[in-house]
Amino acid sequence: MNKQLVQTKQVVTLKNGSITTPKGYYAGGLHCGIKRKRLDLGWLFSEVPATVAAVYTTNQIQAAPLLVTKESIKISGKIQGVIVNSGIANACTGDEGYKNALFMRKLFADRIGVDEHLVAVSSTGIIGEQLPMQKLEDGINQIHHLDNDVDCFEKAILTTDTTQKKACVQLKIDGKTITIAGCAKGSGMIHPNMATMLGFITTDANISQEALNIALKQSVNQTFNMITVDGDTSTNDMVVFLANGLAGNPKLTQHHAEWDTFLSGVYLVCESLAKQIAKDGEGATKLIEVKVKGCNTSADAGKIAKSIIGSNLVKTAMFGEDPNWGRIVAAIGYSGVQLNSNSIDVYIGEQRVVKNGLPETYSEENVTTYLKENEEIQIIVDLHDGKSNATAWGCDLTYDYVKINAMYRT
Amino acid sequence: MNKQLVQTKQVVTLKNGSITTPKGYYAGGLHCGIKRKRLDLGWLFSEVPATVAAVYTTNQIQAAPLLVTKESIKISGKIQGVIVNSGIANACTGDEGYKNALFMRKLFADRIGVDEHLVAVSSTGIIGEQLPMQKLEDGINQIHHLDNDVDCFEKAILTTDTTQKKACVQLKIDGKTITIAGCAKGSGMIHPNMATMLGFITTDANISQEALNIALKQSVNQTFNMITVDGDTSTNDMVVFLANGLAGNPKLTQHHAEWDTFLSGVYLVCESLAKQIAKDGEGATKLIEVKVKGCNTSADAGKIAKSIIGSNLVKTAMFGEDPNWGRIVAAIGYSGVQLNSNSIDVYIGEQRVVKNGLPETYSEENVTTYLKENEEIQIIVDLHDGKSNATAWGCDLTYDYVKINAMYRT
Repeated sequence: MNKQLVQTKQVVTLKNGSITTPKGYYAGGLHCGIKRKRLDLGWLFSEVPATVAAVYTTNQIQAAPLLVTKESIKISGKIQGVIVNSGIANACTGDEGYKNALFMRKLFADRIGVDEHLVAVSSTGIIGEQLPMQKLEDGINQIHHLDNDVDCFEKAILTTDTTQKKACVQLKIDGKTITIAGCAKGSGMIHPNMATMLGFITTDANISQEALNIALKQSVNQTFNMITVDGDTSTNDMVVFLANGLAGNPKLTQHHAEWDTFLSGVYLVCESLAKQIAKDGEGATKLIEVKVKGCNTSADAGKIAKSIIGSNLVKTAMFGEDPNWGRIVAAIGYSGVQLNSNSIDVYIGEQRVVKNGLPETYSEENVTTYLKENEEIQIIVDLHDGKSNATAWGCDLTYDYVKINAMYRT
Repeated sequence: MNKQLVQTKQVVTLKNGSITTPKGYYAGGLHCGIKRKRLDLGWLFSEVPATVAAVYTTNQIQAAPLLVTKESIKISGKIQGVIVNSGIANACTGDEGYKNALFMRKLFADRIGVDEHLVAVSSTGIIGEQLPMQKLEDGINQIHHLDNDVDCFEKAILTTDTTQKKACVQLKIDGKTITIAGCAKGSGMIHPNMATMLGFITTDANISQEALNIALKQSVNQTFNMITVDGDTSTNDMVVFLANGLAGNPKLTQHHAEWDTFLSGVYLVCESLAKQIAKDGEGATKLIEVKVKGCNTSADAGKIAKSIIGSNLVKTAMFGEDPNWGRIVAAIGYSGVQLNSNSIDVYIGEQRVVKNGLPETYSEENVTTYLKENEEIQIIVDLHDGKSNATAWGCDLTYDYVKINAMYRT
């Protein structure tokens, strides 16, 4: 993705936009009793069946709702409603769990009056427990899907998250205003390749399914798949992208002259959500952005960026506000990428701390101050070995990460 | 390695043995001033040049002492002395660092009266700082290499370690008693493939260099390379294995009838050191052993074992004494190994918690008690998909890990 595109005036960010800002979408949430108090059941509805693209966890063990959603999408490539619960993941639940996911789909399809295959199902929470189906049924029967309350949807999908996550952009194609928006959850068990992360993206664009798939995959690879909180990847996670066509533009494909504009919009929504997830990593106090440039291939750049952002030692150093570049260099070294250690430069913020693989003379105090005073920390690595780049996002590793994960069952 | 061998009477563990128990070895340590107070300079000496085998970190960025040690070994395949400092790693130190490592080798070679190429050099500590050569020179000039004080050697190589690590076994081959012993350091930045870990193994066996190499590589692959503390691998680490032949046995090769006995001895020393390192992981309160069996290949079994032992979520659950098998199953799923989730069994201690991929009914209280009352926790995974096994070791992730790594420069 050429970030230049993003800086043009072609794509406008709507600060208060949400997944119901694109035309024809409705969303809401309620408390059905899976969790003790907080909202735990959310739904999303499109006035008309929407073309759909989806990506799923690469974990070999996939939860029942993913299987059911895949089955739905397979039938007509369209989705009109999404039903999501938090609190229980419906993973490692066997035949009973699979039947429960099917039943959850049927209940919601009946409630909103559409065919079952137009419903996607999503769950997040504890692994290995069965869903309390009576509570879910009672909850679904309380849904009024045309009463719009997107704030409740954003809350209902959260688990250990401390903040709601949303993004929205607008752009014009063929004279029509197109809106793209997203909502996500994710806080722990976050790692490249779609981990304990749910993402719901909506647009009113009229677009072919092939193009929608391309836009989603390209953007996810450079955003959601470039964040890591703890290196663990989960059984449940997916991003679903609905396009209901109500913007009224002529059908968009990847061959359209304005394709890059649309792609920028999708990328921007995904990048914003990914950064919000990384920043809300369990126990995190800082967002860390690692930019790796000057690589031979973008795959190499990605490997190095993920190696740094995934290092517990780098993460604890950032928590300790310690400009410990040695740990960054060590993480570059074990990334598996062939490299020339004599040409590595490393920056923390704007301060170069390593030049040609050797420590630079610099004011450690300035860098420490930078680490202390900023909640968003940038680490830049330049290998001077090519023209490819990658960026990854993560967070620091703190006492609270240990507390959250040692003391509470997830 | 067939663990049966280990249980025969052929190999006897000497509880109080050390690297100077094999005939003809001397070791000591002193404080030369790299660290504030603790011992920081250690040496090992063999009466006669010893056949040597060594393995090194797989980190692409290798510290100067590793380069110098490789150069030494290349010349005659023999080493008579090893000089080690702790406190500064002499990594990312450029030409000056390389010259310092060469000079350190020369100083020690002169002091003990051997050729420079018979000396190995090793350093561990902070990355990116130059060694204080005057202090090192003064320190080396105080060495009396025939005054034996192995306890000081064991202390002098430590960094954030809280315990000395040693192991010693004896066995008989061709009627001669052979002793194999080891000493190691390592506590943080520990991960498969030789990370911030130094190992020094001595034996008085008379053995070919080829056989010595085989014994070291096979044992290291199944022991040191199967431990993880934090997933980070360092720039400095190596295991050096010296065999001085003073036991007087006819030259041993891998074709000898008693080869497996010797191999068992080396394996036992390496396994013991590896477990001691894992148990002493920074901030750790528990040693975790993960045994994976029933796999198609031992590579698959190893991948799964390392995936579980490397999971921050499993590590925090163990710290929290929480039998959170869902995180274990998730780690199996993202290990990258193709598997049938319906045939996975998981045990915590002796309690099966997952059968055929589904949660087992069991007393959670019993498992919690097991986790609370034991410092050594066993997790067993059976895939029922073949006959291959692997074992990995690690430790829990605690508040103290964060404290050690956030608050102190390493």
